[in-house]
Amino acid sequence: MRFERVAIIGLGLIGSSLGLALGRWRPALEIVGFDADRDTARRAEGLGAVRRTASDAVVAATGADLVILATPVRAAIGLLEQLGPHLSPDCVVTDTGSTKARIVAAAAQPGLRANFVGGHPMTGRLTQGTAEPVATLFDGAVYCLTPAADTDPEALAGVAELVEALGAQPRFFDPAEHDGLVAAISHVPYLLATTLMAVASDSAAWREMGGLAAGGFATMTRLANGDPAMYGDICLTNRVAIVEHLDRFMEGLAALRESIAEEDAGLTAHFEDVRRRHADWLKERKDPAPTMSMDELRPTSLILPRRWQDALRGLRPPERH
Amino acid sequence: MRFERVAIIGLGLIGSSLGLALGRWRPALEIVGFDADRDTARRAEGLGAVRRTASDAVVAATGADLVILATPVRAAIGLLEQLGPHLSPDCVVTDTGSTKARIVAAAAQPGLRANFVGGHPMTGRLTQGTAEPVATLFDGAVYCLTPAADTDPEALAGVAELVEALGAQPRFFDPAEHDGLVAAISHVPYLLATTLMAVASDSAAWREMGGLAAGGFATMTRLANGDPAMYGDICLTNRVAIVEHLDRFMEGLAALRESIAEEDAGLTAHFEDVRRRHADWLKERKDPAPTMSMDELRPTSLILPRRWQDALRGLRPPERH
Repeated sequence: MRFERVAIIGLGLIGSSLGLALGRWRPALEIVGFDADRDTARRAEGLGAVRRTASDAVVAATGADLVILATPVRAAIGLLEQLGPHLSPDCVVTDTGSTKARIVAAAAQPGLRANFVGGHPMTGRLTQGTAEPVATLFDGAVYCLTPAADTDPEALAGVAELVEALGAQPRFFDPAEHDGLVAAISHVPYLLATTLMAVASDSAAWREMGGLAAGGFATMTRLANGDPAMYGDICLTNRVAIVEHLDRFMEGLAALRESIAEEDAGLTAHFEDVRRRHADWLKERKDPAPTMSMDELRPTSLILPRRWQDALRGLRPPERH
Repeated sequence: MRFERVAIIGLGLIGSSLGLALGRWRPALEIVGFDADRDTARRAEGLGAVRRTASDAVVAATGADLVILATPVRAAIGLLEQLGPHLSPDCVVTDTGSTKARIVAAAAQPGLRANFVGGHPMTGRLTQGTAEPVATLFDGAVYCLTPAADTDPEALAGVAELVEALGAQPRFFDPAEHDGLVAAISHVPYLLATTLMAVASDSAAWREMGGLAAGGFATMTRLANGDPAMYGDICLTNRVAIVEHLDRFMEGLAALRESIAEEDAGLTAHFEDVRRRHADWLKERKDPAPTMSMDELRPTSLILPRRWQDALRGLRPPERH
């Protein structure tokens, strides 16, 4: 599958960085962009992230063979409905949203269901809405793809190839499985940071606290700088998984509180155990299993169904120009 | 007050950095050190953090006019009892522990009570037990001092002068007030990081979670690398304040959980509000009130009682050699 004309809807950090990375990969690609905010659109055009911008999302998407929705989740769901009737029959659609079950369900409409491939780049910089877009944003990042049961294997292979062209590593998840995992490792951490900031700054002693607070507090509240609209959407579209993982966290914290209240002599050993787990995780992140070729890698995927494995098996790493 | 011979008990990151910073300030100062771990003691001597090491804490402290206890809190409390009978009558004693009420209470013994000045350097690097000691560790850091009702003003002034010689900023707190503040801004953040790491790694899906986890999870678990013995001591010596602030945090988190479960439309506005508070705090940290001279600064302290203000008022910034 060779895309010729790409529409990127939403030209913030992710959308503009996608445009730059795609342009780096294949300079002849025709990239049209749209953003509801005109300044954001102008900035993307000025950076060369898109060749031109369109006056609305439908105009941008008409005639494209790949549409990338790079907006917060609920806006992307609205765009799917708006754009559906205007897309070319073979147009592949993907998104970059932080939750996947809702948008995959919204894509289950005639003419779209087979060609929609949910995506979620884990750049670790998603929360920095003001960061400068760069072509290298996806280099080495994990990029989740969440095909549905009836996703066309060729559409999936096309998006997976694109992800590799961005320099990222595609990983395949069931949409609900994805949402449970990111609730635990991304959404709950944000909610903890926000709550720590809210509770501390609600305190009568906040003036003194804020003056004393050093590295630990700064570290644990850094995520509170995340994009409020993005996290609002995340909470509304991943409610069940978030509540489940918040409950697990609160159980763990309540147990620790009891240990402290009872002056449990095992606290230091508990902290040692957790520190070891943390060190093991960091070590594994730094020393992942040796890189395998695409042909080796794909059939070993734990979760990718056989029919998709077959479609992906024949792929070669994309050329880089 | 001019110290001639300093004993540093505990030669980890803080103790050794103190030795290096004091040596930078006044190269002729005689600094004797002790650490129960012989390798740690040898390393400190090798770095030039102490002029020599002693065979035990009593030998190190005998004849000193300043003793600095740079161990976890409960070890420091034990040392106070052990060293008390061996100290010169005018010897000033200070510590660097993370909680202050317990050790200040333990210092309320004849011959010691007036000369003990509790201290807590907020270097923001306290948790990194393996970091290399450096003379600059305290540069610009807030350094809490927690005199008790009967602390000798001269002892307090002497330790405050020393803190400024280290390049740090002395701030004065009641011991219990200090412990409440650090429970909120330092101890609770550590407990959140540890619990997030523990709960995530207890999950049946940890293998997948750990592979996906990116910047946000790494940020929010970084403090789990803190020294287990230090945090064990912190929990045991600051139980009441920690439990109180954990309870406040859990109330805040439970309220947020309800908002999410109920699909509260005000979530984005709440996140915006917290982000603004976070930005305000960061801004204030970066742009603190203009630096005042010591004479201006001291009488404006909100909490320093008049009798100490008078003792401190005459101080001049120490010379730097």
